[in-house]
Amino acid sequence: MRKLRMGMVGGGLGSFMGDVHRKASGLDGMFELVCGTFNRSPVKTKETGKALSIPEERCYGSFQQMILKEKELPEGERMDFVTIVTPNHLHFEPAKTALENGFHVVCDKPMTLTVNEAKIIQKLVKKTGLLFALTHNYTGNPMVKQARAMVQNGELGDIIKVQVQYLQGWMAKELDDQASIKPWRADPKKSGIGGSLADIGTHAENLTEYITGLKIKELAADLGRIGEGRVLDNDGNILFRMENGAKGLMSISQIAVGEENNLAIKVYGSKGSLEWNQEESTKLIAKWIDKPQQTFTPDGNGIYDSVRAVSRIPVGHPEGYLEAFATVYRNFGEHLQAVLNNKTIEKPDYPTIIDGLRGVQFIYAAVKSDKANARWIKYK
Amino acid sequence: MRKLRMGMVGGGLGSFMGDVHRKASGLDGMFELVCGTFNRSPVKTKETGKALSIPEERCYGSFQQMILKEKELPEGERMDFVTIVTPNHLHFEPAKTALENGFHVVCDKPMTLTVNEAKIIQKLVKKTGLLFALTHNYTGNPMVKQARAMVQNGELGDIIKVQVQYLQGWMAKELDDQASIKPWRADPKKSGIGGSLADIGTHAENLTEYITGLKIKELAADLGRIGEGRVLDNDGNILFRMENGAKGLMSISQIAVGEENNLAIKVYGSKGSLEWNQEESTKLIAKWIDKPQQTFTPDGNGIYDSVRAVSRIPVGHPEGYLEAFATVYRNFGEHLQAVLNNKTIEKPDYPTIIDGLRGVQFIYAAVKSDKANARWIKYK
Amino acid sequence: MRKLRMGMVGGGLGSFMGDVHRKASGLDGMFELVCGTFNRSPVKTKETGKALSIPEERCYGSFQQMILKEKELPEGERMDFVTIVTPNHLHFEPAKTALENGFHVVCDKPMTLTVNEAKIIQKLVKKTGLLFALTHNYTGNPMVKQARAMVQNGELGDIIKVQVQYLQGWMAKELDDQASIKPWRADPKKSGIGGSLADIGTHAENLTEYITGLKIKELAADLGRIGEGRVLDNDGNILFRMENGAKGLMSISQIAVGEENNLAIKVYGSKGSLEWNQEESTKLIAKWIDKPQQTFTPDGNGIYDSVRAVSRIPVGHPEGYLEAFATVYRNFGEHLQAVLNNKTIEKPDYPTIIDGLRGVQFIYAAVKSDKANARWIKYK
Amino acid sequence: MRKLRMGMVGGGLGSFMGDVHRKASGLDGMFELVCGTFNRSPVKTKETGKALSIPEERCYGSFQQMILKEKELPEGERMDFVTIVTPNHLHFEPAKTALENGFHVVCDKPMTLTVNEAKIIQKLVKKTGLLFALTHNYTGNPMVKQARAMVQNGELGDIIKVQVQYLQGWMAKELDDQASIKPWRADPKKSGIGGSLADIGTHAENLTEYITGLKIKELAADLGRIGEGRVLDNDGNILFRMENGAKGLMSISQIAVGEENNLAIKVYGSKGSLEWNQEESTKLIAKWIDKPQQTFTPDGNGIYDSVRAVSRIPVGHPEGYLEAFATVYRNFGEHLQAVLNNKTIEKPDYPTIIDGLRGVQFIYAAVKSDKANARWIKYK
Repeated sequence: MRKLRMGMVGGGLGSFMGDVHRKASGLDGMFELVCGTFNRSPVKTKETGKALSIPEERCYGSFQQMILKEKELPEGERMDFVTIVTPNHLHFEPAKTALENGFHVVCDKPMTLTVNEAKIIQKLVKKTGLLFALTHNYTGNPMVKQARAMVQNGELGDIIKVQVQYLQGWMAKELDDQASIKPWRADPKKSGIGGSLADIGTHAENLTEYITGLKIKELAADLGRIGEGRVLDNDGNILFRMENGAKGLMSISQIAVGEENNLAIKVYGSKGSLEWNQEESTKLIAKWIDKPQQTFTPDGNGIYDSVRAVSRIPVGHPEGYLEAFATVYRNFGEHLQAVLNNKTIEKPDYPTIIDGLRGVQFIYAAVKSDKANARWIKYK
Repeated sequence: MRKLRMGMVGGGLGSFMGDVHRKASGLDGMFELVCGTFNRSPVKTKETGKALSIPEERCYGSFQQMILKEKELPEGERMDFVTIVTPNHLHFEPAKTALENGFHVVCDKPMTLTVNEAKIIQKLVKKTGLLFALTHNYTGNPMVKQARAMVQNGELGDIIKVQVQYLQGWMAKELDDQASIKPWRADPKKSGIGGSLADIGTHAENLTEYITGLKIKELAADLGRIGEGRVLDNDGNILFRMENGAKGLMSISQIAVGEENNLAIKVYGSKGSLEWNQEESTKLIAKWIDKPQQTFTPDGNGIYDSVRAVSRIPVGHPEGYLEAFATVYRNFGEHLQAVLNNKTIEKPDYPTIIDGLRGVQFIYAAVKSDKANARWIKYK
Repeated sequence: MRKLRMGMVGGGLGSFMGDVHRKASGLDGMFELVCGTFNRSPVKTKETGKALSIPEERCYGSFQQMILKEKELPEGERMDFVTIVTPNHLHFEPAKTALENGFHVVCDKPMTLTVNEAKIIQKLVKKTGLLFALTHNYTGNPMVKQARAMVQNGELGDIIKVQVQYLQGWMAKELDDQASIKPWRADPKKSGIGGSLADIGTHAENLTEYITGLKIKELAADLGRIGEGRVLDNDGNILFRMENGAKGLMSISQIAVGEENNLAIKVYGSKGSLEWNQEESTKLIAKWIDKPQQTFTPDGNGIYDSVRAVSRIPVGHPEGYLEAFATVYRNFGEHLQAVLNNKTIEKPDYPTIIDGLRGVQFIYAAVKSDKANARWIKYK
Repeated sequence: MRKLRMGMVGGGLGSFMGDVHRKASGLDGMFELVCGTFNRSPVKTKETGKALSIPEERCYGSFQQMILKEKELPEGERMDFVTIVTPNHLHFEPAKTALENGFHVVCDKPMTLTVNEAKIIQKLVKKTGLLFALTHNYTGNPMVKQARAMVQNGELGDIIKVQVQYLQGWMAKELDDQASIKPWRADPKKSGIGGSLADIGTHAENLTEYITGLKIKELAADLGRIGEGRVLDNDGNILFRMENGAKGLMSISQIAVGEENNLAIKVYGSKGSLEWNQEESTKLIAKWIDKPQQTFTPDGNGIYDSVRAVSRIPVGHPEGYLEAFATVYRNFGEHLQAVLNNKTIEKPDYPTIIDGLRGVQFIYAAVKSDKANARWIKYK
């Protein structure tokens, strides 16, 4: 088993997400970063490359260059896949180009700015057979995987109701400060038509579908754009209905003062219910119609073996953001290893192109619903 | 100061709510139960009266009889007010008759079955000047009062978002058992057009308005009627908007498996936010835009004096349901004492006829919205 | 079943404990207060009696008077038992006199100032066959009773280790204020040789023995007397060993800044362990050697029927201090009813003379150990 | 700034601690592993080296070989320091040899098997001026550092009482299985005279001294050796007194059924108190004599800048074991960078030789005290 070779688009020195992708992919020793175009400025790309011990000749001036030049390298040397960690508007072109040139892709969420773009990527993935992973990192949490496994095994009975929230407060600090609006997140050209919808709403949506194994089929959204001059949503209350008839509600906000990263979900079934909160990510609470309440932990009693396998540190020790992120990478990596060795893998467990498309559809449906005073909008 | 004399409608032996009203009103030694019509059956009424040491001649066969006979008693002897603890459909007539005959009223929620009935009671209260208290008991909790005081004093800034839930699971146990449907709660003739809306939704609605000091002006509701043959809602997801533009969402359920009495609210303002959960009723969490998170307790540091005054037991000891219920009674009693002594009282702090009317309007708006596929319905 | 007639020693208007005993004994409608000597001042006793609607002739000038005069009243009228709610040094004489004159006794803890006094009371109880209840109120909590039942039924296996704490901080506020030392609690003549040991340590000790069903056989205590001029302990760290070889440690403090009423216990057995915290009194956490962690609630799934019976309010609603206190009274009352009706009752469940004696022995052993630099002291 | 070159003793493939040290040291990109003697078996060492991409010639057959051979390499190539991740009995010799040959040392805890060995290492460190870091990883937690800073800045006033526990349950599962006794942890020749004392007790001891900035001066220990044939302690209750007169108690256990990694500490001062629990490592609770309770989070409001600097991931995301471990490495690395560049660093913040010596003294004192029936034993 050799290490998988990764080329990175974005993630220059000082970039938060670039650092996270590098640490997460580095955690299991499964990947090596071999090349990159880390910044629009070739100078900064080279500085970053130097700091990361990447040979200067593989620090490219643009993603196009990187993809074409790497393609010409011998098989044992060229990158295996491209990882895209740029702002939203710079996901589509690199992903498209990579796929067109035979490279697998790992991409930050949301996948693209528009549904059309998402469908183009989807077609390319289908046509090329290449792998595409979307880094919905929270689905890498052991307790999220335990929740999904419990639902899949019928422990909860029929799913009836879902309550999900993703609440942050950091934007509230900036509401009076016009200058401090984070450039790209508040700019529709770079973020897309969704603000908090794109940044955190898609995580809530993806988590809901991942745990329940059910698709949202329609939603009604009441969005807020709090603060002078805000064009994009920074708050939202959303009703939704799932394919099996289950009903749900979602609350998202980036101006919920005092909230840090309060992503939490409750799933109610006919026989039991589950609660998970990202800020206490090592606990999964299960309540039952006829048994006492239970609390599961990553390596504790009663955990599915498949879940135990994604816990890296000894029982009782917090493992969180980086570890979950690393699990998305690892599961992608295992799939890629299989592909490279002409093997197949049963049900690879990481977010894919489908999740990417659904996320963008979710944003579009929510914005459309909000414009129509929270009218129901269907999508599939 | 003499004890206030209470006549009770409903609450026969074995009735849960009758017992609660008696314990709660008894806690501060401010009231005495002097008469009652505890059950439709005069025999059961007499048995209850005997158990409660009420003279046989003041155990009446009907509420009409009680009200008329008590009216004839000398002033120092006759009841001061009527307390109504019957199922929903038996609130209106006793309340109306009591007011028409000069008696103050304490009434369980929801106030009446219909908005029309509620408006009739409202007019009577206005016309007679008599007191009317609605036992939204959760507003009696010290930490709920602390929350309200913090909002009123501007500590939170402008209110922007409210998230409220009232989740129970007990009905889920009965879904397969047609015979065990609680007779009156599932019967529209007795419960009214709302099921969980009436039983718990009005608590969530009232708590929201009590803490924020703001009115809900419109809502969009997606209700569930889970289980074969269920006519009334037992689950609901509701978007709402408040008079100041704040947006909110409410989740209610009586089929949320494993939930006990999970009434919880989060209120987000421009400077701070608050969280309260009835199941841990002695904690109020405050989060701030520029200060560390705080936790308040009933008799702890930093509590408003008005709140400290409604805590009955030493700091650190749980006080809950009964104590909060008792506070509603006490605050009503203090108002009534003032009235009887021709004094006035500034801002009496208990739910009144206004809360009663708004609760019924809320139920109507939610049912109407749900029938129109969660269209927005305004009310005031 | 008639109401049980209670005479009270202590508990004048404004007395906290008197009010608690009256509310707690009143909660189930099982007792009536018929007479009292509420204060050393006959004037204050009469004022209290008036406020409580007790006839003036049964407001006595002293406990001796009360006991002798009540004894002369006809059987259907005279009090059934004496309740003693005075400071520690005023427990012994009233208890002794009551027993000598044929009255049952309910007494606050610690039972007496000295071990000798405790043994005198014990002998009297044995000789007369009268009932004696000690109000270790925390043992009335449903989840404490669940814990005890689980241990008794062997669910935990052999008990190996106990960790118990009772932490308060209120005394820390007064350390600089010599004048504000609570008169009797800091005065050895009134509190006895133990300060925090007597006030809260005995609760921790009694809770330990109640839940485990095991006796402490020896202890080693390191006590603190923080603050200038403090004679009695206000802090303590104690090692102990139980009759079956289990080891434990106890932390008590009244100067633990910020703590409110943090009484908490962990009991570890060979098959499972339990955790209970008085400040969240409706939760009992059980951890198992081979099963996921469970959380029990007063009326939730998996509760022993005997426990469900002592929960008064609907599932999910906090019930706490008063309700637990009321349960001690109710269980005493049920025993007394049985005795009055010449019936027997199996294993009456309330703290008795044995608990009273052991509490005083515990205080003595701890003070003795502390004086000998935490040498082990045995007692039984 | 070049990467610091690390040579590893122990940590062969499959070794848990080796993996942790590699991941933790790798997290900030500050170190590179250049050589190692990973196992007694040269074959296994080479396999490990291969998996870690270490050239075969730098996979050494013994630590002696590694140290001598590396010493001969040119300055720009040879390792900068040795990291020791072997069982307890294999710490002393490699540490001694490394120091004698001019290499800095990072060593797992406890530092050595005996106090004598510890003093030899201490003298060598003093004599050579080389750096020595002990990986008490929990002190790397941001909230632990916040606690220490708050104490140092006098926010708590005088420290009066400390309550610390480190509770695990995993050994309970093995008590009936003689064969499954973890070889070295239960063998005095390899673990030393302390079992749980060495494995987890030293963490509790070190955490206490780190946060309070005070030394333990004497202790009284009551240890348990639960299970047939157990020679070393697997449970302990310990009283202690600190240099300023503060008193404390410590509970440790590896047979506390159901506990995972429950390391928790409460520190009480004259003005405030702090609570931290490793299992919820991103929360620090502060309680105050005159202000409401506060909760601090790693990147939240009110955090010291020095603490904010050691938080790696965005606010609200769990970071835990690995990140804290990495901080110990990073702080050591920054010190080493300074030394290599002939700079000085003010108060380097990582556990050193002093902590190493004190840990072994603590184990010795506790075992000695236990043998004398929990007599007080002084050390310094």
